[in-house]
Amino acid sequence: MSNNTNDTIFIGKKPLMTYVTSAIIQLATIPIITIKARGLSIGRAVDVVQMVLNKTKPAFVLGDIKIDSESLVSEDGKNRNVSSIEISIKKA
Amino acid sequence: MSNNTNDTIFIGKKPLMTYVTSAIIQLATIPIITIKARGLSIGRAVDVVQMVLNKTKPAFVLGDIKIDSESLVSEDGKNRNVSSIEISIKKA
Repeated sequence: MSNNTNDTIFIGKKPLMTYVTSAIIQLATIPIITIKARGLSIGRAVDVVQMVLNKTKPAFVLGDIKIDSESLVSEDGKNRNVSSIEISIKKA
Repeated sequence: MSNNTNDTIFIGKKPLMTYVTSAIIQLATIPIITIKARGLSIGRAVDVVQMVLNKTKPAFVLGDIKIDSESLVSEDGKNRNVSSIEISIKKA
């Protein structure tokens, strides 16, 4: 279930409010969603979560936070470790 | 205790290895440390934690992860919310 695109939002380079709005729309119909990001977008993921919680309080609360690192092959052929984060938001 | 500079490392603009080395040195004498960062440094904090865990495994494990947002007054006088993260690393 957690890999279902309906309940997971990947944070990229779009304006933050795009992700905040998607998250709130998802939370209207499902009780828990996960915000994921890698590398430099990790700080933006935390921003999105805080904005969602702020706008919806007290209906939703912070769930689990997980961090990990993934080994990717970069353009120059070297292995690079990229950190990632997963933050869940759930019904209070 | 958690505001004691000995057990808290704030992530800024120095090279990542500076923070990784400081963290490992602290962990040699105290059982738990906290890595903190704000805003764009949040992704770097996750990198530092992953590098410390990688270099010290299996002696240390990930502890609690907390996220928050702080209201700061920016240079133009407006209030801005800045996200922050605190990640602890402790003896396994």
